[in-house]
Amino acid sequence: MNHPARLALCTWRDVEAYLETSRFILLPIGSTEQHGPNGIIGTDHVTAEAIALGIGDKIAALVAPTINVGMAAHHMAFPGTMTLRAETLIAVIGDCVRSLYAHGFRGFGFVNGHGGNTATGRAAMSGLREELPDAVIKWAHWWEAPGIGSTARELFGNREGQHATPSEVSMTMALYPNEVKTVDGPLDIESCRPRGIPGSVEFRKLYPDGRMGSDPSLATVAHGQRFLQLAIDGLAPKAAEIAAQVAPST
Amino acid sequence: MNHPARLALCTWRDVEAYLETSRFILLPIGSTEQHGPNGIIGTDHVTAEAIALGIGDKIAALVAPTINVGMAAHHMAFPGTMTLRAETLIAVIGDCVRSLYAHGFRGFGFVNGHGGNTATGRAAMSGLREELPDAVIKWAHWWEAPGIGSTARELFGNREGQHATPSEVSMTMALYPNEVKTVDGPLDIESCRPRGIPGSVEFRKLYPDGRMGSDPSLATVAHGQRFLQLAIDGLAPKAAEIAAQVAPST
Amino acid sequence: MNHPARLALCTWRDVEAYLETSRFILLPIGSTEQHGPNGIIGTDHVTAEAIALGIGDKIAALVAPTINVGMAAHHMAFPGTMTLRAETLIAVIGDCVRSLYAHGFRGFGFVNGHGGNTATGRAAMSGLREELPDAVIKWAHWWEAPGIGSTARELFGNREGQHATPSEVSMTMALYPNEVKTVDGPLDIESCRPRGIPGSVEFRKLYPDGRMGSDPSLATVAHGQRFLQLAIDGLAPKAAEIAAQVAPST
Amino acid sequence: MNHPARLALCTWRDVEAYLETSRFILLPIGSTEQHGPNGIIGTDHVTAEAIALGIGDKIAALVAPTINVGMAAHHMAFPGTMTLRAETLIAVIGDCVRSLYAHGFRGFGFVNGHGGNTATGRAAMSGLREELPDAVIKWAHWWEAPGIGSTARELFGNREGQHATPSEVSMTMALYPNEVKTVDGPLDIESCRPRGIPGSVEFRKLYPDGRMGSDPSLATVAHGQRFLQLAIDGLAPKAAEIAAQVAPST
Amino acid sequence: MNHPARLALCTWRDVEAYLETSRFILLPIGSTEQHGPNGIIGTDHVTAEAIALGIGDKIAALVAPTINVGMAAHHMAFPGTMTLRAETLIAVIGDCVRSLYAHGFRGFGFVNGHGGNTATGRAAMSGLREELPDAVIKWAHWWEAPGIGSTARELFGNREGQHATPSEVSMTMALYPNEVKTVDGPLDIESCRPRGIPGSVEFRKLYPDGRMGSDPSLATVAHGQRFLQLAIDGLAPKAAEIAAQVAPST
Amino acid sequence: MNHPARLALCTWRDVEAYLETSRFILLPIGSTEQHGPNGIIGTDHVTAEAIALGIGDKIAALVAPTINVGMAAHHMAFPGTMTLRAETLIAVIGDCVRSLYAHGFRGFGFVNGHGGNTATGRAAMSGLREELPDAVIKWAHWWEAPGIGSTARELFGNREGQHATPSEVSMTMALYPNEVKTVDGPLDIESCRPRGIPGSVEFRKLYPDGRMGSDPSLATVAHGQRFLQLAIDGLAPKAAEIAAQVAPST
Repeated sequence: MNHPARLALCTWRDVEAYLETSRFILLPIGSTEQHGPNGIIGTDHVTAEAIALGIGDKIAALVAPTINVGMAAHHMAFPGTMTLRAETLIAVIGDCVRSLYAHGFRGFGFVNGHGGNTATGRAAMSGLREELPDAVIKWAHWWEAPGIGSTARELFGNREGQHATPSEVSMTMALYPNEVKTVDGPLDIESCRPRGIPGSVEFRKLYPDGRMGSDPSLATVAHGQRFLQLAIDGLAPKAAEIAAQVAPST
Repeated sequence: MNHPARLALCTWRDVEAYLETSRFILLPIGSTEQHGPNGIIGTDHVTAEAIALGIGDKIAALVAPTINVGMAAHHMAFPGTMTLRAETLIAVIGDCVRSLYAHGFRGFGFVNGHGGNTATGRAAMSGLREELPDAVIKWAHWWEAPGIGSTARELFGNREGQHATPSEVSMTMALYPNEVKTVDGPLDIESCRPRGIPGSVEFRKLYPDGRMGSDPSLATVAHGQRFLQLAIDGLAPKAAEIAAQVAPST
Repeated sequence: MNHPARLALCTWRDVEAYLETSRFILLPIGSTEQHGPNGIIGTDHVTAEAIALGIGDKIAALVAPTINVGMAAHHMAFPGTMTLRAETLIAVIGDCVRSLYAHGFRGFGFVNGHGGNTATGRAAMSGLREELPDAVIKWAHWWEAPGIGSTARELFGNREGQHATPSEVSMTMALYPNEVKTVDGPLDIESCRPRGIPGSVEFRKLYPDGRMGSDPSLATVAHGQRFLQLAIDGLAPKAAEIAAQVAPST
Repeated sequence: MNHPARLALCTWRDVEAYLETSRFILLPIGSTEQHGPNGIIGTDHVTAEAIALGIGDKIAALVAPTINVGMAAHHMAFPGTMTLRAETLIAVIGDCVRSLYAHGFRGFGFVNGHGGNTATGRAAMSGLREELPDAVIKWAHWWEAPGIGSTARELFGNREGQHATPSEVSMTMALYPNEVKTVDGPLDIESCRPRGIPGSVEFRKLYPDGRMGSDPSLATVAHGQRFLQLAIDGLAPKAAEIAAQVAPST
Repeated sequence: MNHPARLALCTWRDVEAYLETSRFILLPIGSTEQHGPNGIIGTDHVTAEAIALGIGDKIAALVAPTINVGMAAHHMAFPGTMTLRAETLIAVIGDCVRSLYAHGFRGFGFVNGHGGNTATGRAAMSGLREELPDAVIKWAHWWEAPGIGSTARELFGNREGQHATPSEVSMTMALYPNEVKTVDGPLDIESCRPRGIPGSVEFRKLYPDGRMGSDPSLATVAHGQRFLQLAIDGLAPKAAEIAAQVAPST
Repeated sequence: MNHPARLALCTWRDVEAYLETSRFILLPIGSTEQHGPNGIIGTDHVTAEAIALGIGDKIAALVAPTINVGMAAHHMAFPGTMTLRAETLIAVIGDCVRSLYAHGFRGFGFVNGHGGNTATGRAAMSGLREELPDAVIKWAHWWEAPGIGSTARELFGNREGQHATPSEVSMTMALYPNEVKTVDGPLDIESCRPRGIPGSVEFRKLYPDGRMGSDPSLATVAHGQRFLQLAIDGLAPKAAEIAAQVAPST
């Protein structure tokens, strides 16, 4: 590979050369939202970005700049959370895909770090697929990669939970080992057991410190390294498959 | 300072604590667009981010995640460029400011890395100022920081140009020393002397390799370090002034 | 109950009286899209409407007029399919909820007949929950009602499939016994086994007669009556729970 | 005719066959709004639907699903009224027409049950006619059908009025004879004589029980049957004319 | 009256003083579209403006700047026609009314010069009346002023027609006597007799020189002066009535 | 020249003939906003219109109707100011350009009278240039015409200021000599020296009578005539250049 995975670090001539061999690109999409007592606000975008770059390195695919702010309205009762309206995120996803399509890209693999983005992401992709019928547009969450779920159960049992999970917090620790924030555990997971995702005011009542049934006191740098690798290795074949599907004819 | 400058690396409790002492935040905004023969596509967002983080460190201010894709329609004839429509960028800027405002932020300092964003940014801010009358919303380009212009003239004379300039390319080299791309110089600056910014098709005719009157063969890591420092030092007082203006009453 | 379940059949004074005892309303939402060789194009809205009215009768709740056209872009390669853009459906859902909220309704139970609506519906609800924080807004598919899945397996085994299923076609037969359309079976379910939901052109290639892994030759009026009853009985408690949650204080 | 008039009850193959013989479709559009002391909230959509289906049966034309909620902002001071914003209704009408146009439909006959829809409907059609220049898009109110006006005068004299009229209330009685709501008459028509259509707050002051100069105590099932037939017979030739104009060439 | 009728010619202090005595303003709205062989493209906005200013002078009311471009999509097959999309005109009308409302204006009298604006204008006003419930927003066409219709019949008989009429062309001649364009008459009115307003392509086929059943060869400066005066005198009482209705309490 | 400069005063056949010789049109764009103690609210649109018409006369170019209301949110604390939202103005500019482009116009020269329009105007043009790649779309402020700046300095020294300037007020006096409003001078320019353009509330605090560092007591009719002529003569060559660039091939 004679180009970096990050599109941002390429020259336009690098991209021109890349398009002769591949018409596939990865697009990390995350969120900027509270992640419990020791999870960082950027958890969902720093993990999505790291995993997408890992896949890009592994299969020699380009990675577009990360969409850092997503749909996090329900976390807005916690300071620091940022959110787009659904219409805005649909427009952002559309403009990004249309820009890249104009250059010849035909395979688009979103690497998603935040469950709350999925509904709006699917809404956006539904329209794009009709507008650009020869494009292949796919969406993957890192936590659906093979091995992630079983490893989380193995390491954390029923303390993985649904938001501010030890697995995602571990990954951010692996990415920013100098910024590790600790919290004394074990944390009570009963008081914040998942009971749906209501509006933000109600959300904070149900989940007072932002966790949903998780115990992020279990997070460690080492666990994070393992999860990052699992996510990269697990999603790379899927990405390679799209890349093959839209490969330029020779 | 007991919090990192990057909002993304804070917990929500860090932000809660921050808001008791400051209601100011920096928002880097860049672009993803061609930057000539050896400039990287992410030039405008990596520089805006680095400078904003530098200011944040210097004055202990938070820095929101970077808006990586801006208004770059006129660069779309070069592969890899990404652009939002004006309506989309107005919506993105609005949603970001409204989210932060909801938590109590009142001072918003955009650190801009791309001249093409300014018109749309100003259009967005004009509406926001009426919608949120007690907010102070400001916009600064790094190249307007005191000392930048004179240093560029000193180092590059009339070879600084207007796009894909040696100063911005130098900064990206300083930020990514392992990704430095060289181009043999001196480059002819007459054939691409600035003659306005037309639509993308015409743009590429006027500026065949993407430069506008610049000679980025002059870029070096050392120059880049100097420009980054000048931008940070030059804009920090302006940021501190807004922060003081909106400081929480005690 | 001295009012009909259908809001459309009430006078405004009926609604005024209803609001003194309940602030809950059901909103059926469906689609107008191909449903395979013998399934009718209105399958998803006629079933959603019938089930919502059944629940309304059972728990004495009002039912708003049905949203007949939803998100069916991926079915557009089959004549007769109609679709809204995601932005349009978000606006429609928002305007409907806002109208009813203005009269004092606080509990909104969407009864959905089409999986393709869910992403956009969730995107819409996410914004509405922040805009109307004291509203409870929920979304239910009829096929998630307890008993539906097991009954489908019992009756159809692996021939239930994912689109144009014998269960939904049965329900339309029960609702329109004079319009029953037959198709000779058994139908080959291997050639149309579910392989994702791509854009419409690709969709028709993967699923040439519109079915996704289903054998609707198994559909009967009697099965339909059973599924309708299961859906009504299965979702009614959920609806009653929301109604109780938002009941007017006395 | 080997297909039902309701598009919703067709299979996609029925529509495919229909398009070989006709490129015309009827689109009922109504409203969900108060209709005085004994008129039902769905009056405008149940009548538009019934009349469109009657025309469809008579001239063997397809009828799209009804747009149930229209422009009723001025009725919002009466509980149960629902309204779309003008921008939303323009989008809904546009998406419906575009979907059907994509399948080959070229004649679009809106059958309107609510005067308040007309302005927005015309605004929508104006744009669609330029976007789809080979489409014929027409709009008809049932009350403009020949014979309706004279019959209303004959039966009700100056007690027909402008909203919650005995003619429209009669039609809903004919359609839902089990839901007939009576009101003791004669009703005073002077206190609610039509004095324009202001905003909703003012509207309720001018028209305290929702009627505009009408006496719906005169409504009967038999009158309703007569009006429905007049509307169907009166509008059918107009619909047949459009159908002929856009008939597929053979 | 110590202020000019044109808002544009007032200082802000004039407006401040005006608002102490009146909260009413006239808003001329026209179109920029073909007006037959000798009618000018600005007919509808120059007449609306002149009539509004005449009313303003007569009743000492302010007149906002004219909305010069309206809804003229169906005239687009004739060079020089300009049109807004319906959504755009709704936004323009809304922004203008909201701006003036913010200063204390409560009565808004649109003086319309183009029938094609009415649908979109009504759609816009419907929403504004709910958004600004204490505002009185009215719409008047000049040709509905008492005396206009009878005078046109008296002068032109059945040669008045519906578009590019001798009455409106006369008014533009009276306003711009140095720009009078003549056309030899009598013009054939049968070949262009009004047969509806289709899309622009069809429109030009039905009305090849832009007239709809009119004979503008009959237009004269003197007739125009008469029509202008009739329109001003006829609409002024209506305007005065709104002004009185919203007059500031003293 | 056998056509008037004002498009509004042409027939469609005049425009048809014009397009055979020129594909260029001027579009005046102004604002409706306070202009200090003796400046009129329409200053920016009456000057833009007059200058555009002057250029049109000089180079035989057509001039479209003026966009009278622009972006003036920051002046909204002064009665009489009107403003569009940025999204609305982008739509208006787009619809106007698209309409004219449809007739064959390819050169579009905006003549701007208000600095506050520029950001939004540029945002609009950026998108239009990509949508209509063979169009040349330019924007000019009258105050950038050669000779304006030096003359203002010569006549008014440091009392020209930035808003409600003696130069623009002079021009409106020249255009409306019967409406000249005087103010006793010299006015204090220190108390209102330009300190940025904040939101409207803050704006009025900084600039209590609406002036920004200007002394419009110096304005006279004679000065206004001189500035108008300078602006026309200064911008005409630029307009002629675009006209030549897009001239129809012969």
